[in-house]
Amino acid sequence: MSDIREVLLNYSNKFNQDIEKYIPQIDSPQYRAVNAMRYSLLNGGKRLRPFLLHETASLFDVDYNTALPVAVALEMIHTYSLIHDDLPAMDNDDMRRGKPTCHKAYDEATAILAGDGLLTYAFEVISTSSLIDSKKVELITLLSQYSGAFNGMIAGQVLDMYTDKNEITSNQEDIIKQTQALKTGCLLRYPCIAGAILGDSSKEEREILNTFAKNIGIAFQITDDILDVEGDEKVVGKTLKKDKAQHKLNFVSIYGVEKAREKATSLITEAIDLLNIFGSKAENMKSLSRYFLTRKY
Amino acid sequence: MSDIREVLLNYSNKFNQDIEKYIPQIDSPQYRAVNAMRYSLLNGGKRLRPFLLHETASLFDVDYNTALPVAVALEMIHTYSLIHDDLPAMDNDDMRRGKPTCHKAYDEATAILAGDGLLTYAFEVISTSSLIDSKKVELITLLSQYSGAFNGMIAGQVLDMYTDKNEITSNQEDIIKQTQALKTGCLLRYPCIAGAILGDSSKEEREILNTFAKNIGIAFQITDDILDVEGDEKVVGKTLKKDKAQHKLNFVSIYGVEKAREKATSLITEAIDLLNIFGSKAENMKSLSRYFLTRKY
Repeated sequence: MSDIREVLLNYSNKFNQDIEKYIPQIDSPQYRAVNAMRYSLLNGGKRLRPFLLHETASLFDVDYNTALPVAVALEMIHTYSLIHDDLPAMDNDDMRRGKPTCHKAYDEATAILAGDGLLTYAFEVISTSSLIDSKKVELITLLSQYSGAFNGMIAGQVLDMYTDKNEITSNQEDIIKQTQALKTGCLLRYPCIAGAILGDSSKEEREILNTFAKNIGIAFQITDDILDVEGDEKVVGKTLKKDKAQHKLNFVSIYGVEKAREKATSLITEAIDLLNIFGSKAENMKSLSRYFLTRKY
Repeated sequence: MSDIREVLLNYSNKFNQDIEKYIPQIDSPQYRAVNAMRYSLLNGGKRLRPFLLHETASLFDVDYNTALPVAVALEMIHTYSLIHDDLPAMDNDDMRRGKPTCHKAYDEATAILAGDGLLTYAFEVISTSSLIDSKKVELITLLSQYSGAFNGMIAGQVLDMYTDKNEITSNQEDIIKQTQALKTGCLLRYPCIAGAILGDSSKEEREILNTFAKNIGIAFQITDDILDVEGDEKVVGKTLKKDKAQHKLNFVSIYGVEKAREKATSLITEAIDLLNIFGSKAENMKSLSRYFLTRKY
């Protein structure tokens, strides 16, 4: 069995070539925001969400090019959220994946507009794809809900910024779980549901993939919190120990590293078992899930 | 004939009641961005774009409720653009329609997220409407293109901020026209095209409405530039004489007030003539066009 890191690397090399075609480099004052969109979109990244989408779609024999526009749109939403989160008024990060963040490479106004541009373009990429209209509408509806301000990614960002997680209350764990489920969970669930929609899955299969995605989402956040404490900044490619510096509670500060790791392991084990109904087609998704437990970045 | 200002006021009262239902007030930390979205969305505004959309749709006997979600989505896009444009990194405006701007009423991070939330929700409002899928897809495609970073509103904002309109060049007028066509023109053309799509118009009717919208868009910008020089800040409800303070060129600084007014009049006269093919159904749109020439805010 080939190493999942190699599979993921091959995938991201291919995906990077394809997503680049969606935003050509054009030197003209009018395209300053477009060039900033391109800068952030092509700035590395593991491409986990597109990979999950393509792997889920392939469980139902949907080919790469059919799923591509949806994977591209999702990565655009993810990238816009990083650009806006990095702004001085938000997390105020200067570096992202070892390179200057968008507002450092350009300026704040351009970074705001580039984020807006990617968010807007994501919907166009799906609506102008070759999918049938009913699928476009379903995929657009879910993408707006999962990334939205009511019960999606934006709500998670709000919870992360404005709930006082230092306050010692009985529902601290609930708040952290809710924040994670929205802030990072939604965009890890979307690719699994979108793959099921593309593949005309049964309702049961879609439910299974939803639970799978919830589990790996929490596990991913736990390992992120562990990396924030134990990781090597040069390998991870972003500022670490920020949660501690900002006195933010997270899974590690609540459970401790060992118990947090145990929780992640148990969630991943359950997630992998769920995939058994898909037989050998799910091998990459299983390997990816296991890899979440040992990842160094 | 009733005064168009009264027609517009009655319309906006009705529209305000309807758009409010799309964003209920919910007191919970998770909904901080939602409440900021609501604050800006319900903060007055002439509702010109929704009015234009409903009036165009009614040329084809499309009823109010059928067109409503598209009008709501468009107003959400317009409002998000104002929230982000008002940010300190952009135009740095403290007041909008006589009330504190979103980042003043809340804070910068919330204003960024509220803008993102409205932009995201706009697409959901169309995709979950009761329109048929093919119309949803066409309306979403155009909305993303007209508000986007390639040849839409965001590109116009970029041109407005980053082209040196002070530089004395032969194509100054072209740059100002191009900036206007994108920055304010796109969202005044969208409602006319969207009304035509909702009404299954002929290709010819759609072309006529597109030219009409282009004309009134330029005329609207010219009168905006005149108001920036001659308007009463209390009536207009925003900071005036900013273009002069920032040494920005606009239609007035290029043509002078008198010639600018002549240009606007000629554009509006042509626009009104175009509507003759729609007979008496176009009376409100004709009156609105005339009103553009005399508006005080």
